[in-house]
Amino acid sequence: MTKIFGDPSEFVDDSVAGFVDLYSRFVQPVPHGVIRSTATPEGKVAVIAGGGSGHYPAFAGYVGPGLADAAVCGNVFASPSTRWVYDVAKAANRGGGVVLGFGNYAGDILNFGLAAERLRAEGIPAELLVVTDDVASEGQGANGQRRGIAGDVVAFKIAGAAAEAGYGFDDVVRVARHANDVTRSMGIAFAGCTLPGESEPLFTVTPGNMAIGLGIHGEPGISEEPIGTPQEIADLLVDKVLGGKPEGTPDGGKVAVLVNGLGSTKYEELFLLYGPIAKRLREAGYEVVAPQVGELVTSLDMAGCSLTVTWLDEELETLWTAPAQCPALSVGPTIETTPAPTYVVPEDEVADYTGTPAEAQEAGQKIAGLIEAVRDVLKDAEAELGRIDAIAGDGDHGTGMVNGSVAAAQAARTAADAGAGAAATLSAAGGAWADRAGGTSGVIWGVLLHAFADKLGDEGKPSAQQVAEGATASVEAVMRLAGARVGNKTMLDSQVPFAQTLAERVGAGDDLKTAFTTAAQAATAAAEATKDLRPQIGRARPLAERSLGHPDAGAVSLALVTRTIADKL
Amino acid sequence: MTKIFGDPSEFVDDSVAGFVDLYSRFVQPVPHGVIRSTATPEGKVAVIAGGGSGHYPAFAGYVGPGLADAAVCGNVFASPSTRWVYDVAKAANRGGGVVLGFGNYAGDILNFGLAAERLRAEGIPAELLVVTDDVASEGQGANGQRRGIAGDVVAFKIAGAAAEAGYGFDDVVRVARHANDVTRSMGIAFAGCTLPGESEPLFTVTPGNMAIGLGIHGEPGISEEPIGTPQEIADLLVDKVLGGKPEGTPDGGKVAVLVNGLGSTKYEELFLLYGPIAKRLREAGYEVVAPQVGELVTSLDMAGCSLTVTWLDEELETLWTAPAQCPALSVGPTIETTPAPTYVVPEDEVADYTGTPAEAQEAGQKIAGLIEAVRDVLKDAEAELGRIDAIAGDGDHGTGMVNGSVAAAQAARTAADAGAGAAATLSAAGGAWADRAGGTSGVIWGVLLHAFADKLGDEGKPSAQQVAEGATASVEAVMRLAGARVGNKTMLDSQVPFAQTLAERVGAGDDLKTAFTTAAQAATAAAEATKDLRPQIGRARPLAERSLGHPDAGAVSLALVTRTIADKL
Repeated sequence: MTKIFGDPSEFVDDSVAGFVDLYSRFVQPVPHGVIRSTATPEGKVAVIAGGGSGHYPAFAGYVGPGLADAAVCGNVFASPSTRWVYDVAKAANRGGGVVLGFGNYAGDILNFGLAAERLRAEGIPAELLVVTDDVASEGQGANGQRRGIAGDVVAFKIAGAAAEAGYGFDDVVRVARHANDVTRSMGIAFAGCTLPGESEPLFTVTPGNMAIGLGIHGEPGISEEPIGTPQEIADLLVDKVLGGKPEGTPDGGKVAVLVNGLGSTKYEELFLLYGPIAKRLREAGYEVVAPQVGELVTSLDMAGCSLTVTWLDEELETLWTAPAQCPALSVGPTIETTPAPTYVVPEDEVADYTGTPAEAQEAGQKIAGLIEAVRDVLKDAEAELGRIDAIAGDGDHGTGMVNGSVAAAQAARTAADAGAGAAATLSAAGGAWADRAGGTSGVIWGVLLHAFADKLGDEGKPSAQQVAEGATASVEAVMRLAGARVGNKTMLDSQVPFAQTLAERVGAGDDLKTAFTTAAQAATAAAEATKDLRPQIGRARPLAERSLGHPDAGAVSLALVTRTIADKL
Repeated sequence: MTKIFGDPSEFVDDSVAGFVDLYSRFVQPVPHGVIRSTATPEGKVAVIAGGGSGHYPAFAGYVGPGLADAAVCGNVFASPSTRWVYDVAKAANRGGGVVLGFGNYAGDILNFGLAAERLRAEGIPAELLVVTDDVASEGQGANGQRRGIAGDVVAFKIAGAAAEAGYGFDDVVRVARHANDVTRSMGIAFAGCTLPGESEPLFTVTPGNMAIGLGIHGEPGISEEPIGTPQEIADLLVDKVLGGKPEGTPDGGKVAVLVNGLGSTKYEELFLLYGPIAKRLREAGYEVVAPQVGELVTSLDMAGCSLTVTWLDEELETLWTAPAQCPALSVGPTIETTPAPTYVVPEDEVADYTGTPAEAQEAGQKIAGLIEAVRDVLKDAEAELGRIDAIAGDGDHGTGMVNGSVAAAQAARTAADAGAGAAATLSAAGGAWADRAGGTSGVIWGVLLHAFADKLGDEGKPSAQQVAEGATASVEAVMRLAGARVGNKTMLDSQVPFAQTLAERVGAGDDLKTAFTTAAQAATAAAEATKDLRPQIGRARPLAERSLGHPDAGAVSLALVTRTIADKL
């Protein structure tokens, strides 16, 4: 259980601050991440690792010569926002393009994907390295692929070594994706972990049992068994990993092997387990090359471990064993370095709202007040939203909604006080929400508010009709981004009835407050009804079953936001 | 809680086996420890680190170029036996003498001390490096010194660097002891750890509280307070450590700093804590040199952390920052190495009992049977003895007694079957107990049985008078070794009344069984009466208070052994 923290919302920033102080020979700080403090040649491909925090040494611990050029540090177990990924990648880019590496989770796919688009739009080559090693989640992670767990380390190490060796952009992408393609992992958990500031673990395992096939965010496993002997655990992990052997790889030959501790399963236990694992692999005809046993990708203080195997060809072996030094790893001879220049954060452009009519400015003030009310309600609901989300997900929904709404309220107030109209104020809120919330919900709420804002205009007070159109536009934007539809147990299950009811009631002549109130009631009932649904996107089957009888956190929070606004209109 | 283990008594051996497989580039196995697998020059001073297991990376993780030459691996939280220390030191000796480094605990003082005597008797220079950094235990550790905790890392690193640099034996000892003299630590715990195979933690901390001043064996802290903010925890640790500033060190200047995690307090929390610690130290005029933050000396999965500060002069700074590579640390440029020859375990001499009279051989068989009975009873009592010991100690007493009696019973049976008499059989048992039990009780029971055996002879069946003399001699031997007397709450509190009653009853003409039974009853009553005593050796005051109302584990097990023998006579 996390014990050392001040304000939980500052946990990651405070931790990264201590980390960069400690490891200044490897890293220097940039907003929401770190880049190398040692110089790299112009034109070098930059390898960016990232994702949520709480996984140290993943990801900042892998920044250094021969490995990553930068890490993006999201909130605990939550994807960094698109903006954060973009900013860190821009800071790390040396003109050779950027490879954005992360484990396969919905929020990361969205945020890293949108950041890559934005970078490419500016002429910076950018490709995704989506790690999909977890055999327990076959076909059940984001995009229908496996999830990414400790295989991150192998994929990022190989990408980093290729970039260090001077590979061109396309070749770094090729070899790193190949490394992921031939990497498989399997994990078990003995006990869940607890987010900073929370009192209950994200999940529990029956004492004496082990959960098979956990994810690294505290997602529960896919089955439970009594804890076996070290030999039985080794057999289980080796059998599952070899059972998921990638097509085209040989039965035997050289393999990279990781035995990863998740936080509270200690070194002595991991060494004890490595013995029979190495023996089994050797008996199966494999030669273990440069194995790593220890805490490589953790989940705070979760108890458990995983086995990762990478089938090495000659190129992969060379890159896997190439020198690398970073806070968490030291491989081979020391790479000589010289200091890099200190990074200077570029200044944000200041918005100018000159010429906005007074009536529109009043609407801007009204919207800023509404978002402040939403923020206050979400703060009260934070723990409950996290609890609902943890049933079938990673439990970050409450934190994400609070971080997003706090940033959105502040940005909206700043914009409104500077004279912004309704659209500009709501758009500023959407930008801040997307930039600062992180996670899946952050990017979705950013897109939602932007789409909504586009219909309101900055010419005067938005009409009820404009508001209804905004709600409809925001539904379309979310559907497009998330690739989901009604019935998938997502926020759309309450957002769609809300927008439809609002449009109907406004069309029938209700005033805005009445129509909004009726629509919010419809959203609330629809959110409640998601109890009877199974999630169909990015959730393993047992988690989908587990979520039966519990509403979807995203649908519940959407309904809560609409009720809050209806009250204040 | 430890989850991955097979037979708990094989935990350390199995774990070390996996460790040497994994890190064969640094280490090779020797019985009960590891030595470097890389060559060192003849005449180099060998630095041996050691103590109980369960503290990884301490101690085997610190073996490698620029650091230790070998590590002795005791059972979990228990001192290695004298024989184990001796064997590992012999294997590591390159003709330049051996420095035996360990934290200041009673069992280690005994076993490393006796091993050093034995080495010196063979002409091998051997000195102790007793680490005493824990300011929380001022005047309350073994020998009236502080206990040793994470300061081990600094002392061993500096000893290792000096030896690597070619310092002579006396200079390595001098600079390493100086490093210890200017090192201070302070720790806190949030939750206790559980020994492999046990279901309850060694101690608990009230939820929401932190125990101040814990030891690394799960010894409880000296007070409890609510968990503070990171700033408050940093202030507490810095204030306590600077408050214990060694005499003669400057107020300011360069310091080595460790922030050590005990197992379940994770990296993000440690980095978060390091920030305000470094700031406080800088504000106090200190320059932090090559800080280390992470898991350096753990206690299985205990939750908690400690701060260590070493006041560096020029020589210490040079040695602290000198290159070193080992499984747990990588400092500076790679030290070039070549493989060392594979260590071959020397064969034990086989005892020859030719000429022992038949009556004496019968007595040998009888003694082997008695020790087997003792072993069976101790196995049943293992958990209870550990529980009593954990109240004011490290909870290893049950395990130590079982390991010792299992080895003793096997050795006694082998000797008796080979024709040994009473003295030779009991002496073989004592040797095996001392070699294989580890901990404080192991060395004491070895000495006790040897002294007892000396009075029995191998000429025939020992008389009641000889047995009574053996009991008296064993009391004297234990008093001499442990430096304790009746009333100190040790095993002597039941051993002395046992020996006195036995001598009285035999002198009064009772037969051996009757006299032994009466003496065992006296021992049992005396063991029970230790409830009213406070321990006065090697225990911090709050622990001494805590032990009031609970008997001493050593006194209880001595009484149990005497009752078992009385029943079987």
